[in-house]
Amino acid sequence: MNIYLPKGYRFAAVHCGLKSDPMLLDLSLIISDIPAVAAGVFTPNLVCGAPVQVDRNRVPGQGFRAIVANSRYANACTGEQGIRDAEEMAALAAQSVGGHAQQGLVMSTGVIGTQLPMDKIRNGIAAASTKLAASETEFLNAARGIMTTDTVEKYVTKLLTLKNGEIITVAGICKGAAMIAPKLATMLAVIVTDAALEPSVAQKLLQTAAEESFNCISVEGHTSTSDTLLLLANGAAQPTPLHGENLELFANTLRELCIELAVKIPEDGEGASHLITIDVEGCKTRDDAKIIARKIAEDALVKTAICGADPNWGRIVSASGTAGVFYDPKKVSLKLNGFELFKNGEPIPFDKKNISDSIRNNRATHILLIFGEGDTGIRFWTTDLTTEYVRLNSDYTT
Amino acid sequence: MNIYLPKGYRFAAVHCGLKSDPMLLDLSLIISDIPAVAAGVFTPNLVCGAPVQVDRNRVPGQGFRAIVANSRYANACTGEQGIRDAEEMAALAAQSVGGHAQQGLVMSTGVIGTQLPMDKIRNGIAAASTKLAASETEFLNAARGIMTTDTVEKYVTKLLTLKNGEIITVAGICKGAAMIAPKLATMLAVIVTDAALEPSVAQKLLQTAAEESFNCISVEGHTSTSDTLLLLANGAAQPTPLHGENLELFANTLRELCIELAVKIPEDGEGASHLITIDVEGCKTRDDAKIIARKIAEDALVKTAICGADPNWGRIVSASGTAGVFYDPKKVSLKLNGFELFKNGEPIPFDKKNISDSIRNNRATHILLIFGEGDTGIRFWTTDLTTEYVRLNSDYTT
Repeated sequence: MNIYLPKGYRFAAVHCGLKSDPMLLDLSLIISDIPAVAAGVFTPNLVCGAPVQVDRNRVPGQGFRAIVANSRYANACTGEQGIRDAEEMAALAAQSVGGHAQQGLVMSTGVIGTQLPMDKIRNGIAAASTKLAASETEFLNAARGIMTTDTVEKYVTKLLTLKNGEIITVAGICKGAAMIAPKLATMLAVIVTDAALEPSVAQKLLQTAAEESFNCISVEGHTSTSDTLLLLANGAAQPTPLHGENLELFANTLRELCIELAVKIPEDGEGASHLITIDVEGCKTRDDAKIIARKIAEDALVKTAICGADPNWGRIVSASGTAGVFYDPKKVSLKLNGFELFKNGEPIPFDKKNISDSIRNNRATHILLIFGEGDTGIRFWTTDLTTEYVRLNSDYTT
Repeated sequence: MNIYLPKGYRFAAVHCGLKSDPMLLDLSLIISDIPAVAAGVFTPNLVCGAPVQVDRNRVPGQGFRAIVANSRYANACTGEQGIRDAEEMAALAAQSVGGHAQQGLVMSTGVIGTQLPMDKIRNGIAAASTKLAASETEFLNAARGIMTTDTVEKYVTKLLTLKNGEIITVAGICKGAAMIAPKLATMLAVIVTDAALEPSVAQKLLQTAAEESFNCISVEGHTSTSDTLLLLANGAAQPTPLHGENLELFANTLRELCIELAVKIPEDGEGASHLITIDVEGCKTRDDAKIIARKIAEDALVKTAICGADPNWGRIVSASGTAGVFYDPKKVSLKLNGFELFKNGEPIPFDKKNISDSIRNNRATHILLIFGEGDTGIRFWTTDLTTEYVRLNSDYTT
């Protein structure tokens, strides 16, 4: 995959002693050479990490120079000391490139309930600041420094040509595979662009993009204490805030990038043997479609059926009926991997072996559920539920 | 366990050829010798079985003589023919003891999307009607005839002494272990009493009891298409409808019986190695407590942690934060099997090995989560999530 880096950003990651394996990066630094506008979308969990509490008070806003992110410890359920530590991390990151304390943002992922080993973190930020580079290598390292149970680093970059021919670049990294503890995981994502955006516009675009991407994925339906999505826009490619048609173009690119980035999470889902794409169509509203899609995505019986290559229309149809959205069950149709299994509220004959084979032989599975209530739909992504997922998440020894 | 049978009821079950193993009972008949008041609580699933649609139109009401229930086929997603078949089953059951068509009720559990083999069902009802008895054996047989993946028959019976010294009896049977398909399962329960109740009072009592029992259990959070709870009250022990203090006594007994019956379902949960009791206390309202308890009960990470004997307070606290109920996270405390792990929003030191041993060495696990919002609570029951659950529910061969 080609990597395009936006102008005016530098990246670095180091091992500062948080992860036990010294070969693994555990602290990432992302720097904007000029002050950038920042927007953020955060976990709705009432129990949220100190970094979430710190960032939430700062964005949307402008003048940001640095984002620092560590893995291994989430700095959640850590009381007032946790807040002070998160503030110090953000300050050290910004100060490492000549900024002031309030110009930094911070993210943490990992175990909750443990205070950060701040000596290691301080040394890590100092070390990272000496190797900052606008290079593919350090961009990928930044993606690796936030990994917990992820098996691959996750990133997407995109070019966008504005109406006047100018090219802007958007680059994103993320991490997430499930919430597993004691190595409690999380979804973290950082997107940087050299476009210029007004803070309130940046915030609105990011929220809209998140709705159709990071809010449309699920591994096991547990929203972590630390989920964070940050956007920096520094205007290094063109300093005038986007508006009109260019803004629309940018919004589309941001949305596509968020979707591509978000799908990498269930694609790398813990113990998953299938990436399941769920299209829910024919609903009255997008919210209705999303509620139904999420219900199916998080249903243990649907997820185990796909794991077992079972074209079990009954579990899908039944799950949708309990979502809390009213619809006429006689107007529901279902296709699985393109095969029609259920039409207008009743099952229709199908070749079970053929469809089972198509599930078994492909990692990608497609569920299409069509209602007769309207013309709005949504796309949602999830994993199957395997014995390996249970093994990974119940493997505990004192 | 002692079995007490209420006066004026007879029971029977037969193998009529629905289940492939001829040793397994698959059709149960419950008869009241005199017309009885009936109440019912049904699945909220929009996709609901034909028996649910038929019964829902008849209860609450009076004059009922028979309940017929079959396993193996749920008669759901079966269109107009399914409705006609359910009506015929109810009619045959009532007519088998001299009643008329409208005096019957019907339940089905099993595969959805398949038409009932009505010849077998007709023969089964006729055969069952010849062996009806007010005996422990036939009461237990009736409980066995509705089993699908259950490993044991489930029943509870209770005596209640009214203020004037009269004794009335309440007896209940139920089935349920998970929703597994192609052997799609369900929760079915029938409670019979020789007390007399007004239909509207019976309905209210049953709904109230269900709220704290059958609506407070979860195996994997999938509400089936066929969940049904029926109550018959025939007044054979005392013909005057209960009121005042006696009615309160009865309501308590009914509630206790429903709870004991309901807990047998997660106790027999598919592949479960733990029965988890979740007490949520200190909430503003009972609904708040229930929403939080259900969120914890259905969280894959909490369920796998208990499976792995992991005293993982983080997953429990984090799950509660995403329930959608507002509370102050700084006023939350948590005990696991009596050990305090988390107090006023922060983890406290504990002996991990000791608590892990207490989880590993006991099938019963107790989670106590205390909020500082009010003085209302709820008790909820669920299972752990094991590799065996996944294996059972993904084991599919064409």
